[in-house]
Amino acid sequence: MAAVQTQPARGMRDFLPDAVRRREYVIGVIADVYRRYGFEPLETPAVENIETLMGKYGEEGDRLIFKILKRGEEGRNTGDADLALRYDLTVPLARVVAEYRGKLPRFFKRYQVQPVWRADRPQKGRFREFYQCDVDVIGSTSPVVEVELCAAVSDVLSRLGFGDFVIRLNHRRVLSGLLEAAGVAPPLHGTALVTLDKLDKVGASGVESELVSRGIEATVARRLLATFESAAGLAAAHADPASLNREMLAMLRATIASDSRSAAEASTPDVSPAGEGIAALSDIVRLAASTSAGSHLRLDPSLARGLSYYTGAIMEISVPDLSGSLGGGGRYDGLVGMFLGEQVPACGFSLGLERILVVMTERGMFPPALTTVPADVLLTLWSAERAADALSLAASLRGAGLRVDVYPEADKLVKQFKYAATRGVPFVLVMGDDEAARGEVTVKDMKTGDQRSVARQDVAALLRQR
Amino acid sequence: MAAVQTQPARGMRDFLPDAVRRREYVIGVIADVYRRYGFEPLETPAVENIETLMGKYGEEGDRLIFKILKRGEEGRNTGDADLALRYDLTVPLARVVAEYRGKLPRFFKRYQVQPVWRADRPQKGRFREFYQCDVDVIGSTSPVVEVELCAAVSDVLSRLGFGDFVIRLNHRRVLSGLLEAAGVAPPLHGTALVTLDKLDKVGASGVESELVSRGIEATVARRLLATFESAAGLAAAHADPASLNREMLAMLRATIASDSRSAAEASTPDVSPAGEGIAALSDIVRLAASTSAGSHLRLDPSLARGLSYYTGAIMEISVPDLSGSLGGGGRYDGLVGMFLGEQVPACGFSLGLERILVVMTERGMFPPALTTVPADVLLTLWSAERAADALSLAASLRGAGLRVDVYPEADKLVKQFKYAATRGVPFVLVMGDDEAARGEVTVKDMKTGDQRSVARQDVAALLRQR
Repeated sequence: MAAVQTQPARGMRDFLPDAVRRREYVIGVIADVYRRYGFEPLETPAVENIETLMGKYGEEGDRLIFKILKRGEEGRNTGDADLALRYDLTVPLARVVAEYRGKLPRFFKRYQVQPVWRADRPQKGRFREFYQCDVDVIGSTSPVVEVELCAAVSDVLSRLGFGDFVIRLNHRRVLSGLLEAAGVAPPLHGTALVTLDKLDKVGASGVESELVSRGIEATVARRLLATFESAAGLAAAHADPASLNREMLAMLRATIASDSRSAAEASTPDVSPAGEGIAALSDIVRLAASTSAGSHLRLDPSLARGLSYYTGAIMEISVPDLSGSLGGGGRYDGLVGMFLGEQVPACGFSLGLERILVVMTERGMFPPALTTVPADVLLTLWSAERAADALSLAASLRGAGLRVDVYPEADKLVKQFKYAATRGVPFVLVMGDDEAARGEVTVKDMKTGDQRSVARQDVAALLRQR
Repeated sequence: MAAVQTQPARGMRDFLPDAVRRREYVIGVIADVYRRYGFEPLETPAVENIETLMGKYGEEGDRLIFKILKRGEEGRNTGDADLALRYDLTVPLARVVAEYRGKLPRFFKRYQVQPVWRADRPQKGRFREFYQCDVDVIGSTSPVVEVELCAAVSDVLSRLGFGDFVIRLNHRRVLSGLLEAAGVAPPLHGTALVTLDKLDKVGASGVESELVSRGIEATVARRLLATFESAAGLAAAHADPASLNREMLAMLRATIASDSRSAAEASTPDVSPAGEGIAALSDIVRLAASTSAGSHLRLDPSLARGLSYYTGAIMEISVPDLSGSLGGGGRYDGLVGMFLGEQVPACGFSLGLERILVVMTERGMFPPALTTVPADVLLTLWSAERAADALSLAASLRGAGLRVDVYPEADKLVKQFKYAATRGVPFVLVMGDDEAARGEVTVKDMKTGDQRSVARQDVAALLRQR
């Protein structure tokens, strides 16, 4: 018979049992923490109407959406697609909020852990099917929302064993304010941000010349760079988040106020968009100090976040040994309105399951008990005639909560023992004709080699005790 | 703004929190029972190469597979599909077994709970995205495999609260033997089975005339009907599975032996395919008596199961108040070979999550604790100034394992209480300025109306005790 393709499709992965157990462990911690914050689970279909998704993720996003052919003749003849695979969990949430608005509580706090699909070019650590772990609050503009989200994410990462993560925090309006203060014309804001994002890689002079080549005046470029360099300087000088955030807020206020407000205005509260952004950041930082997020939250005016739907605070989580982020999020007060026709405030956080798994695997962060064996005990099959007896013993052990594998064939005992050893099963039971006649079972501890006969009714207790 | 479509795509469903909790409860029971039998979790991608799926489910199946357009220009211009959505969990399992044969244990026992997609016409209770809960054993022809599968499924249903389910059991070779014994020519076996399947609906005379109209001789049709009627008579006469199965085996032996074997042969073991089938059924019934499946397993020679890949025992679960089955399965020793080029024995069972949920909902079988409230306690927000204090209290209560919702805005207290009442949250905490100054919190029991002041550090203990 001709060999056929048996690998998963390009960019897709099979998860064998050990991998599933690691994934389930992380998802279990995430769900448990989110439930403690009063978030409720939501699930949406993998397949959405194509118009629900198109136009929500920018041009690049539209290209990367997997499209499903219409059924029957029509699809074959026209090549038209009417459905598409879920691209993220935020747009489906916005659709759900619009559809069930009357049924949902005033503050809808949901978490959702499901796969999404993107037709990206597969590369190391980037897949075409991957899980997002989202948590969002719909219905409030209060900074308590941002703080609760940051605290929940901090608890998740702490419970998983991460101690060294940083939640970078910025605000879309502050970012705009800084660009305006430096004199960048609004149409060039996007270009400027993309270029500034390369500061780490190409350095200040590289960024400056690129900004100029993209149509930004040299004096403007230098002023902008000065701001981001002074922010980077503050970050380097302050290991403690509290003092960093205090200094950073002062710097932001000074930069934005000195450029856009007169001296007379400076003594009254700043109600410009950028001023509101700074006030929001200040509230978030202050309130977060009362939660587990406090020691991880660091203001970073250079954080931009790609997605265009963010309107307020933006957050991103980083750890030293991973380029790219473990997750990110922000406030998007306009997205639900695209479906509902009425603005509904919203803010959320998305953790990337695969990246968390990558770092946890590299650092060896999984609890030892998780490298788990498939069963607590293997029940050998002495002979076909003893099968009924073995199955009955298995039933009683399972009833006692043990995980029992039954060897299905009356192979040589040595082969059955070897099978248990290969699979790491810690105990093996033998019930030969003589033992059965005496109502006994031989229990072998595969680690110590210790072997003893035990009355049948005592086997479960003995095994549970070990 | 123009209203946009916000319903899920046709035949797809959103699951709001209560629905997700019910689904997670059932999946949790299924996974827990399967783990006790030594089954391990497997996950495969939603998207498969199209050639992996095509041709595995018959012509009708091929039509119902959702096909994904090739990316970029090519897809748009040609309308070609190169990928497809998973149609069941058995074919991906066969692919996985072929791909990772060397890494998998000799007996690969896996469970898999994932959605599948079929472009069926949506109707009541039939969806285009639905979950299958599969459990399979790869690598052994022993009847212990069938018995363990039936026992595991019985344990699942019993744990969920089903007492009245029946596992109907038959064997493909016995079915062929009965048709042959009656004189149906092999090319007409398929037609005959489809027609016999209507016995319940159109009665014996209806089936007889349809069989004749489909080219089966009247004497042959009558002989066949006589067999299935005598089987139905046995089933009606024996409520006890043990005596039914004993009588049914005797009837099958007599029917097949009398037609296909001489009297001289009848005293030696029957090694014909049908005889092997009867022997397998006899083994399964005998061994199952030692397990939880014993009281549910009933031989039913009329059970056919649609899928063409079955080669041995076939099973299907029914309950009185559901037309259609809760699940089914069987032995398919040829399917892995389609990928591997080498035969590997396999047998499995698939439970339909949505059907289990339908019956459980209609019967009110969910545990009362599952109609679960979103949080154990709502922490009200007295004023924006008290937010930091509230968040700090929330953190300590969550640390004690409580599920704490924090009202995000400093609304009027009466509104916050009303919110808790609407959502069914059993306790509400108030920390006003005076209480905070005294280090106290007011705890209100929403059920009794009882309200008392408690020292802040005692709140967690008080709530946990309730």
